[in-house]
Amino acid sequence: MSPEQFREEGKKIIDWIADYYENVEKYPVLSQVKPGEIISSLPENPPQKGEAMDKMMRDIEEKIMPGITHWQSPNFYAYFPSNTSFPSILGDLVSSGLGVQGMIWATSPAATELETRVLDWLAEMMAMPEKFKSKSTGGGVIQDTASTSALTAIIAARERVTKFESNEKGVQQKLVAYISTQTHSSLEKAIKMAGIGKENLRLIDVDKKFAMKPEELDTQIQKDKNAGFVPFFICGALGTTSSNAMDPLRKIGEIAQKENCWFHIDGAMSGTAMLCPEFRYLMDGVELADSFVFNPHKWMFTNFDCDVFWVGNRNELIHTFSILPEYLKNKATESGAVFDYRDWHVQLGRRFRSLKLWFVIRHYGVEGLQFHIRKHVELSQKFTKWVNDSDDFELFVEPPLNLVCFRHKKGDDFNMKLMNTINETGKIFFTHTKLNGQIVLRMSIGQTNTEEAHVKNAWDLIQNTAKSL
Amino acid sequence: MSPEQFREEGKKIIDWIADYYENVEKYPVLSQVKPGEIISSLPENPPQKGEAMDKMMRDIEEKIMPGITHWQSPNFYAYFPSNTSFPSILGDLVSSGLGVQGMIWATSPAATELETRVLDWLAEMMAMPEKFKSKSTGGGVIQDTASTSALTAIIAARERVTKFESNEKGVQQKLVAYISTQTHSSLEKAIKMAGIGKENLRLIDVDKKFAMKPEELDTQIQKDKNAGFVPFFICGALGTTSSNAMDPLRKIGEIAQKENCWFHIDGAMSGTAMLCPEFRYLMDGVELADSFVFNPHKWMFTNFDCDVFWVGNRNELIHTFSILPEYLKNKATESGAVFDYRDWHVQLGRRFRSLKLWFVIRHYGVEGLQFHIRKHVELSQKFTKWVNDSDDFELFVEPPLNLVCFRHKKGDDFNMKLMNTINETGKIFFTHTKLNGQIVLRMSIGQTNTEEAHVKNAWDLIQNTAKSL
Repeated sequence: MSPEQFREEGKKIIDWIADYYENVEKYPVLSQVKPGEIISSLPENPPQKGEAMDKMMRDIEEKIMPGITHWQSPNFYAYFPSNTSFPSILGDLVSSGLGVQGMIWATSPAATELETRVLDWLAEMMAMPEKFKSKSTGGGVIQDTASTSALTAIIAARERVTKFESNEKGVQQKLVAYISTQTHSSLEKAIKMAGIGKENLRLIDVDKKFAMKPEELDTQIQKDKNAGFVPFFICGALGTTSSNAMDPLRKIGEIAQKENCWFHIDGAMSGTAMLCPEFRYLMDGVELADSFVFNPHKWMFTNFDCDVFWVGNRNELIHTFSILPEYLKNKATESGAVFDYRDWHVQLGRRFRSLKLWFVIRHYGVEGLQFHIRKHVELSQKFTKWVNDSDDFELFVEPPLNLVCFRHKKGDDFNMKLMNTINETGKIFFTHTKLNGQIVLRMSIGQTNTEEAHVKNAWDLIQNTAKSL
Repeated sequence: MSPEQFREEGKKIIDWIADYYENVEKYPVLSQVKPGEIISSLPENPPQKGEAMDKMMRDIEEKIMPGITHWQSPNFYAYFPSNTSFPSILGDLVSSGLGVQGMIWATSPAATELETRVLDWLAEMMAMPEKFKSKSTGGGVIQDTASTSALTAIIAARERVTKFESNEKGVQQKLVAYISTQTHSSLEKAIKMAGIGKENLRLIDVDKKFAMKPEELDTQIQKDKNAGFVPFFICGALGTTSSNAMDPLRKIGEIAQKENCWFHIDGAMSGTAMLCPEFRYLMDGVELADSFVFNPHKWMFTNFDCDVFWVGNRNELIHTFSILPEYLKNKATESGAVFDYRDWHVQLGRRFRSLKLWFVIRHYGVEGLQFHIRKHVELSQKFTKWVNDSDDFELFVEPPLNLVCFRHKKGDDFNMKLMNTINETGKIFFTHTKLNGQIVLRMSIGQTNTEEAHVKNAWDLIQNTAKSL
């Protein structure tokens, strides 16, 4: 493909994307295809000869679009959002265009240094402790997902407590980690992957708001120490996935400090709210954390994947993950004057992901980001009020931010039927969870273009469908 | 940003990218900036108000471009390539535009099913064993990097040998893994991360061509078994990173099978050559492998990140990595009729990466891809001949594909000085390694637009600089 053809085809795709956003509400939010429907529409064998772009774009329209669940529809209320924005798409396009691989500083200094600067900006924007900034002892790095960041934190914690011996000899001590019963499943997965074992992961009970009970944490730690275990890692949630419960971070952090445990804060979705001063009380105690993760690719208008992982002590992280084969040696690394981000995480190769984050922050500005976050929280408060005012529905737990957990009073089966019936209309898409053994419906409000009219329509649809069932 | 503004700004960026490729040879290939130069050119504080796109694009030109090392220059011969192509950039743009998160089938059936189909196509295109296809017992999944795939393979192997007990109890047995002294550093890193410990990783000696000696592997395994260790994992390289050495995969595979070890093949760069029948002798024995990895983002014109990981038995993989919290339960998953790729790897969230791979395969067709791979191999053969014909330089090892390892006869210091002097001109960028304790220069020929004239100029520059030093 020549540059001239690229200009032509590229502009058509830009228009196609703009058209998509202008028409996104016309598609069913949840894809309505059956398993195997998409794959059976695609040729079984690869083409021997090259094909034209317009054929590919026609196939996107005809074969791929029916199998898309529209995360960028303003009527998407499922899971947590994974929202994006035009500036983010353009930043990502520049990254694809440049095609640099920033595994170490030398392989594209701008990829490393822009990432450092943008994550320092974010730390300032969210009033994070100084230690998380690159000028201090720590710093940030972009990873793919909060799952991978959790694994990174657990391995670094494992090395710190074993004085970097488990990297050498394997896991030998009886290490034990702590999360709540509500903590994200990725923590369990990471504990397994790191060779610690699920049996050495303690699930601490939660209170009525589904937040970890710190006194239970303390009790369990003492019990484990008496039994010869070595507590090494505690994860506190700044917003759990099921219900957006807020763990008491200060109390957990104090216990972590007393017990010499690595304290990891998982704010994958809700971390973004820290852009607004009025929500920062939720992270009271953050200065006690060793690591903090949040995903701009969830609620900060930055397209997937873009996960921010901060640590207070980068040397621990680098000591854990550093590998330096001869073929990657270079003057800048040897000088010690640069970050080689490959030593900050699992993988070696790195995409230039800070570009899209830079574009997003500069396009919106701090005030623009705050405006949109506040709007989503306000919409959630309105939805909460409608639920509270209704005779048929009940609020399950007071929402701290933008996730509303509610249910119809008629019980589990009715709620599941209600949700599935609505999702099958394609008009909105929302999902469920289980809390205290009960089915609970979740309205997760965070798509970039969701306005009050969308949320109102969703509530009308939910009410009317409930009446008609 | 409105759709209209996006159309306008997006088209400007498409033109900017086309201009970039038309002018890429005018930039110094290796960025010439000093540590801290880029970051100090960027504002210390984030903007409070939003900024216009043209200001951002001006900053890209003025502040970012000097810090770019141009992986997409036809004069880039460093490390391994990370090449791309216009169709790949466009496929990635569609992916950014759609913004779907394909963690499970239900969250965008097309993202899962297109990935399955495209990786089955690739398996066919590369004549991979049937078991790696989705219709059989295995299948493929796209990951970010070969490092992460190596970790995935090691953890799955660890679980298989411990009957999934180390996921539950942690690593307790004396597990031991085998690579060669030339195997990529990511394997050592993965062994550490998985809780096995570096002391339990055996580095098997290599022959004169830097390929693993299978008899030494066998001897070491017997020694370890006698000492009470449990051998569980062997990695064979289809092209090492230092010198592109080809391990004897059949012999290693036979030992792996006899000893009940997981056999992982790392073909990160060279795997792409399997598109051409004439190079497939290099993977003789591949049917003995449990997993195979290669990176279309290295040599197959697909922009970073895109790593293909195949397994022969997907159930082992899924059993190892599966986690199913209530909030991700859905009918399709429960039916068992779909793949939920989140269970095939480390992370949960997933970008729609098969789109760019689909665009690349369809744009080039099998024959087009073969044409370009063959061209790169031929250019390497020409460069090899020039080295062999020269009085001052010597070939270090016969190149099987597209990496030429050579050196000037004047010794290590001279070679390092030669390389650094040339890289500082910005005219080409190539790198070094150490083999048998000696500095060796590497010409890694695989950028999409590298033609004979580029390679000839590079050779002239190397010769002339050597004469002038």
